[in-house]
Amino acid sequence: MVENMSSSATRRIVIENVRPEIDGGRFPIKRVKGECVTVSADVFADGHAEIFVLLLFKRQEDREWQKVRMKSLGNDLWESKFRVEENVNYCYTVQGFIHDFDTWRKGLQKKVKSRQDVDVDLMIGVQILEAALPRVMPQHKSELKKWIALLRNSRKKEDALEAAFDSDLLYMLETYLDPRRSTVYEKELIVLVEDPRASFSSWYEFFPRSWGKKPGQHGTFKDCQQILPAIKDMGFNVIYLPPIHPIGQTKRKGKNNAVVCRKGDPGSPWAIGSKEGGHKSIHPQLGDFADFQDFVACANKLGLEVAIDLAFQCSPDHPYVKAHPKWFKWRPDGVVQYAENPPKKYEDILPLNFETDDRQNLWQELKSIVFFWIEKGVSIFRVDNPHTKPFVFWDWLIAEVKKAHPQTIFLAEAFTRPKVMYRLAKGGFTQSYTYFTWRHTKSELMEYLTELTQTEVGEFFRPNFWPNTPDILVPHLQEGGRPAFIMRVVLASMLSANFGIYGPVFELCLSKSVSDKEEYIDSEKYEIKAWDWDRPGNIKSVITTLNMIRRENPSLQQTRKIRFLDINNDQLLCFYKATEDYSNIILVAVNLNPFCTESGWLRVPIDELGLDYERPYIAHDLLNEEKYVWQGDGAYIELDPQRSMAHVIRLDHQST
Amino acid sequence: MVENMSSSATRRIVIENVRPEIDGGRFPIKRVKGECVTVSADVFADGHAEIFVLLLFKRQEDREWQKVRMKSLGNDLWESKFRVEENVNYCYTVQGFIHDFDTWRKGLQKKVKSRQDVDVDLMIGVQILEAALPRVMPQHKSELKKWIALLRNSRKKEDALEAAFDSDLLYMLETYLDPRRSTVYEKELIVLVEDPRASFSSWYEFFPRSWGKKPGQHGTFKDCQQILPAIKDMGFNVIYLPPIHPIGQTKRKGKNNAVVCRKGDPGSPWAIGSKEGGHKSIHPQLGDFADFQDFVACANKLGLEVAIDLAFQCSPDHPYVKAHPKWFKWRPDGVVQYAENPPKKYEDILPLNFETDDRQNLWQELKSIVFFWIEKGVSIFRVDNPHTKPFVFWDWLIAEVKKAHPQTIFLAEAFTRPKVMYRLAKGGFTQSYTYFTWRHTKSELMEYLTELTQTEVGEFFRPNFWPNTPDILVPHLQEGGRPAFIMRVVLASMLSANFGIYGPVFELCLSKSVSDKEEYIDSEKYEIKAWDWDRPGNIKSVITTLNMIRRENPSLQQTRKIRFLDINNDQLLCFYKATEDYSNIILVAVNLNPFCTESGWLRVPIDELGLDYERPYIAHDLLNEEKYVWQGDGAYIELDPQRSMAHVIRLDHQST
Repeated sequence: MVENMSSSATRRIVIENVRPEIDGGRFPIKRVKGECVTVSADVFADGHAEIFVLLLFKRQEDREWQKVRMKSLGNDLWESKFRVEENVNYCYTVQGFIHDFDTWRKGLQKKVKSRQDVDVDLMIGVQILEAALPRVMPQHKSELKKWIALLRNSRKKEDALEAAFDSDLLYMLETYLDPRRSTVYEKELIVLVEDPRASFSSWYEFFPRSWGKKPGQHGTFKDCQQILPAIKDMGFNVIYLPPIHPIGQTKRKGKNNAVVCRKGDPGSPWAIGSKEGGHKSIHPQLGDFADFQDFVACANKLGLEVAIDLAFQCSPDHPYVKAHPKWFKWRPDGVVQYAENPPKKYEDILPLNFETDDRQNLWQELKSIVFFWIEKGVSIFRVDNPHTKPFVFWDWLIAEVKKAHPQTIFLAEAFTRPKVMYRLAKGGFTQSYTYFTWRHTKSELMEYLTELTQTEVGEFFRPNFWPNTPDILVPHLQEGGRPAFIMRVVLASMLSANFGIYGPVFELCLSKSVSDKEEYIDSEKYEIKAWDWDRPGNIKSVITTLNMIRRENPSLQQTRKIRFLDINNDQLLCFYKATEDYSNIILVAVNLNPFCTESGWLRVPIDELGLDYERPYIAHDLLNEEKYVWQGDGAYIELDPQRSMAHVIRLDHQST
Repeated sequence: MVENMSSSATRRIVIENVRPEIDGGRFPIKRVKGECVTVSADVFADGHAEIFVLLLFKRQEDREWQKVRMKSLGNDLWESKFRVEENVNYCYTVQGFIHDFDTWRKGLQKKVKSRQDVDVDLMIGVQILEAALPRVMPQHKSELKKWIALLRNSRKKEDALEAAFDSDLLYMLETYLDPRRSTVYEKELIVLVEDPRASFSSWYEFFPRSWGKKPGQHGTFKDCQQILPAIKDMGFNVIYLPPIHPIGQTKRKGKNNAVVCRKGDPGSPWAIGSKEGGHKSIHPQLGDFADFQDFVACANKLGLEVAIDLAFQCSPDHPYVKAHPKWFKWRPDGVVQYAENPPKKYEDILPLNFETDDRQNLWQELKSIVFFWIEKGVSIFRVDNPHTKPFVFWDWLIAEVKKAHPQTIFLAEAFTRPKVMYRLAKGGFTQSYTYFTWRHTKSELMEYLTELTQTEVGEFFRPNFWPNTPDILVPHLQEGGRPAFIMRVVLASMLSANFGIYGPVFELCLSKSVSDKEEYIDSEKYEIKAWDWDRPGNIKSVITTLNMIRRENPSLQQTRKIRFLDINNDQLLCFYKATEDYSNIILVAVNLNPFCTESGWLRVPIDELGLDYERPYIAHDLLNEEKYVWQGDGAYIELDPQRSMAHVIRLDHQST
C-alpha cells in the first residue's frame, strides 16, 4: 500500500500486450544485422489525458536507451520500429507518459473553436510550461522562457494563442515530459541479432566418399575439391557433409540398412567412432586434417562454407565407451544400451546419457567438440536429432559457443512434433528443418507458410526448406518425375530464404524408393555410390537459375514478407515476396500438378504493389527470360509440366 | 552454466502456454465458490520418454498441493480441472514428470508383441522399481517389494509379464514418480474466489426521491419501504440507489441538464456534498441513518440487497473543498477546477486530484467511505466512472476492502474503451457494465458475447447487462415500443447471469428522448418524478417470469457456457445455455425485429445436447407455459411481436 500511494500513485499509464514477446520474455526474438523490429503495445491511462509513447531500444551492453516515438493505431494500440545495426544482442521496451501539455492544447483548441473565454486556460498553459522548466537542458531554457513570456502576454492574446499552438513548442515539450509521470514496461525484451548468413543460405548436401577417382573407390577430401566449382556454379553457398568421423565396425549396418554387413560395406557415417577415434577425428579414408583444411580453404576461396554434422551419439567402438563408461546407460546384462524405438533396434548406435552423474564432464566434452571444429574452420553445424537430447543442454551449449563465436550457425534436424521443434528454436538454434518436405497441396503449403511467417513463430523460428534428405524421399517425388523435382525446388528456394537439397540424387531426379516407404533404395547412407552427374534429364540448370534469381533479388533473401494470391485453380500456388519498401517484388506461380497443364486467372494486388490500373507493367519471367506486358489486376497463368512448372516473375514498375 | 549442469540438467520437461494465465500471471482469474477451473498446458520432454503430468492446486494459504492427473489431448497439450470449494484465493500450477516405468512398459509391450526376447528388459524393470523403492511410503514398501519379486522371477516369465502389465503397479508407481526428474511450472497462478452473488444477480435501479407520498413530494427511505415488495415480486435481488448524499447548491443543474436551476429543482444526486455533509452523510430529505438502516433491514428481510453508488467526486459545496483544498486542482484564478470535456463544462462537479501530494490522506479517506457504508449494511457498490481515477487506486482500494470484507461486490460503471474496461476488471472489480446496451444486431450480439465468454476475457471480466440506465436510452428502445423493451430484457437476462434495469421507466416502456440524443427527456436525474407503476402496457409480468426462470434454471446462473445456434433468419437470435453436466438446458430464441413477425428453421445440436434423433423430446416454453414436441435437429420458430418476442425453452430429455 505504501508503495502504491507513494511512487506508483503517479504511474497512471498501463502498458500491456507488448509484441513481439516470446513466452513472457523468457526467450529472445531473432533478427539478422540490418533487419527491423516492429514493436506494438497496448498503452493507455485512466481518464481523458493525452499520452505520449516511446519505443526504447539499445544494444544490450549500452546504458542509454535510444528512443523513437510510437504511433497510435487506434483502440489504444501503439506501434513503432527500429533497426538492429550490429551483430550483438539488442533490447527493447516501451515507455508511456502523461502528456499534460497536449491535453491542455487540444482542450484549448476546442474552447477557441467554440469561442469560450480562454484567459485562465492560457495561465494554466504557463503553469505547465513552468513545471517543465527544471527538466529542460540548459541550452533550451531560454527558448522555453520565451514561449512562457508569449503565453503570459494577455494583452496580445492572438500571439499567445499562436504560441500555444506552435508545433515547435509541442515538440520541445515532448522531449522533456515528466518521467515521474511515466510508466516503463516491466520487462526488457531481447533481440538476438545474428549474421545475415543466418537468414539467407543455399545448402548442398553430399557424401564425400561417393566422389572417389573411380566408381566404388572411397572418395577423399582431395577428390572432393574437384566438384566444388560445379556446386559453386549451381549457386549454392553452404556445403554440408554428413559425419566425417571414423565409422564403427561393431554391428555395422550393411546395404539397405541390413542388420549384418558384408565385407567392404562402409557403414553409416552416423555410427561415429572406432579405434581410429571419435568426434574429433577424421575417417582415415577421407584424408587427414591437412586434407580437410585444404578442402575448407578451397571451398572458402569459391565463396562456399563447409557445414559439418553434429551427431552426439557413438558406435559401440567409440573411444568414449571405454574411457567414459558413465556417459552411457548400461543394461543389467552388462551391454551398453543401444538406441531403440521398440520393436526397432539400432545396435550400431549408442545414445549418450545426458543425465549421467558425470554430466559435468560429458557436457564439457561435447562442447569441446564444437570448439575443436570451429578452430578447423567450420562455423556451420547441422545438428542431428537435437530433440533426443535435453533442451537445457542445447540452451547452454549454443549460448556458450555464441559467446565466443557469435557467427556460428546451428541447424536443428528435428523432424518431430511442432512444439518440440519450436522449443529448440527458442533455445538458440539458428535454423530448423521443417514439415515443408511433407507439405504438398496448395492448402497445406499456404497454411504452413502462414504459421511460419505470419505468426509469432516467425520471430524465433527460421525455416530451412529441404525437398529431400538422405533419409526422406517423399511420395510426390517418387511419382512425379522430373517436373515434380523442379516444382519442389522452386517452392523450397522461393518460399524460404534458407533451403537445401541432398544431391546429386536430387538434381538427377532419382526417385527409386524402398517399396511402400519414404526412403531411398540402395541408400548412400550404407554404400559408396558413383554418380553420372551430367545424366540427361538433370535439373542443374534450373537450380542454377533459381539460385541466381535468389542472389539478385533481395525480396527472396527473407522469408516473412510473403503474400499468397488468389488464383482460381487449386493446382496453382501463387504468391509474391517483396522488400520492405517494395522496390523489389517477385511474383511466383507454381503448378503443383506434375502430370497436367494447369491454368487460371491470377488476381494481382495492384494497389498493394503500388502499380497503376491504367498503365501496363512488365512481368519479367526470370526463369525463361520472357517478358509479358500486363495491365490491371487480372493475369492469365498457364503452366505445362513438359515446358515449365513455374513462373518466377519480377514486376517492374516502369511502364512500357 | 553451473545451475544448468547440476539441478536443471535433469529437468527435461518443458511446460509452456499454461492457460488460463492473465498477463503472464500478473492478475488472478476469477471464480465463485463451487465453480471449476479448467487448466491446460503444453507439456513435453525431449526424446521419446512417456511423461506424466499433474495439475497442482491449493487454497493459497495452504502448504500442501492437491494433485489431479492431467489428460493428454494430443499435440503435447494436456488438460484437467479442479473445483474451488471456498470463498478464499486458490492457486494452481503444473508439474510434469519423466515416466520411466511407463516408457519401459510400453516398449516391453511392443517387444512382447513382436516376440522379442525380454529377459533383459524385465531386469531393467526391476531396476526401475528398485529406484522407486526409497520414495515409497512405508505402508507401500512391502507391496512394491512383492512386485519386484514377481518381475525378478525369470522362471515364471508369464507371471513376471503379467505383473509388468498390471495396472495396479502402474498406478502405484505414478504416485511415487521421481520429483528430481520433474519440472514445476515457474509460476503459481491465482484464482480469486468470490461469493456466488458475484456471478448471478438481478439489479433494479430507482431514484428514491420519486416515491414520495404525493406526486412532486420528495420521497424518503420510509416511503420506499412500500415499494420493496413489488420489486421483490418482480424477482430482483439487488436494489441500486443513485447517490443518497446531500446535493450541492452551487452551479446546481436544472431540469433537462439546464445550466441554471430554478427554485425547487432538486439537482443531480451525483453532485455530492453540501453544508449538510458529504459522502458519509445522507441527503436530509431522504431521512436519517436510522431510516436508511430500517430500509436496508426491510429490504434484507425480503431477500433484497441494497447497493449504493460510489461516485468519488464533489459538488463545489462539499466539505472537503474547504477542509482539504489540496485534494482538488486549483486554477490560476483561484477557482477549483471543475470537470470538463472541452468544450463541455460540468461546473456542478469537481473531480478529486488523485495525484495530489496529500494523496496518502485522500486515498485513506476514500477508503474510509467504503468501510463506513459497509458498517451501515451495504456490501454492494456500483462505482461511478472508475476509469477517470488511477487504476492503481482501485487495485489498492478493492484489495484493502476485500481483505476485511471478502464478500463485497464492486460493479464498474466504465462505459469507455475496451482495454480500459478490461484493465479495471483485472484490477479487482467484481462485475462490469458492458457494450451490451449498444449491441443490437444478431452479428453484433454474437461477436460481443463470443468475446466476453469464449476468450480469456471470460476469466476476469463478469458482464452485467443493462438495456437502459438513467444516462442512456438507445435508439432501438426509442423506436421499437413495447416489443423492443421485451426483446432487450429477454436478451439481457438470458445472455448474462448478471443484469439490471433502471426502472420504472423501463418496465413502463417509456421511450421519449432528447431529440437526436440517446438520453431521456425530462430525466429523473434532475427532477422528482411520479410514476404510474401499473400503467397499461407495462411489462412487469414478463420481467417477473424471466426472473423466475433464472432462479429455477441453473444454466442461466452462469454466463460462459453459451452456444449460438444456426437459424436461417438474421432477425432471429438463437442460443442455448447449459449446466456443465447438461442436466439443465435452456434454449432461447429472440426476435430482434420489434416490428414484424420473423420465422426460420433452427438447427438443434442434438448430439451435443445428448438428445436422440429417433425419439421425440419436449420443448417447454417457460414464457408462456406451452409445450411442443420436437424430434430431430430441425425446429420451426416463428415469433410475432404482437404476441411474443421470444421463446425461452427448457429441453427435457425424457421422451413423450
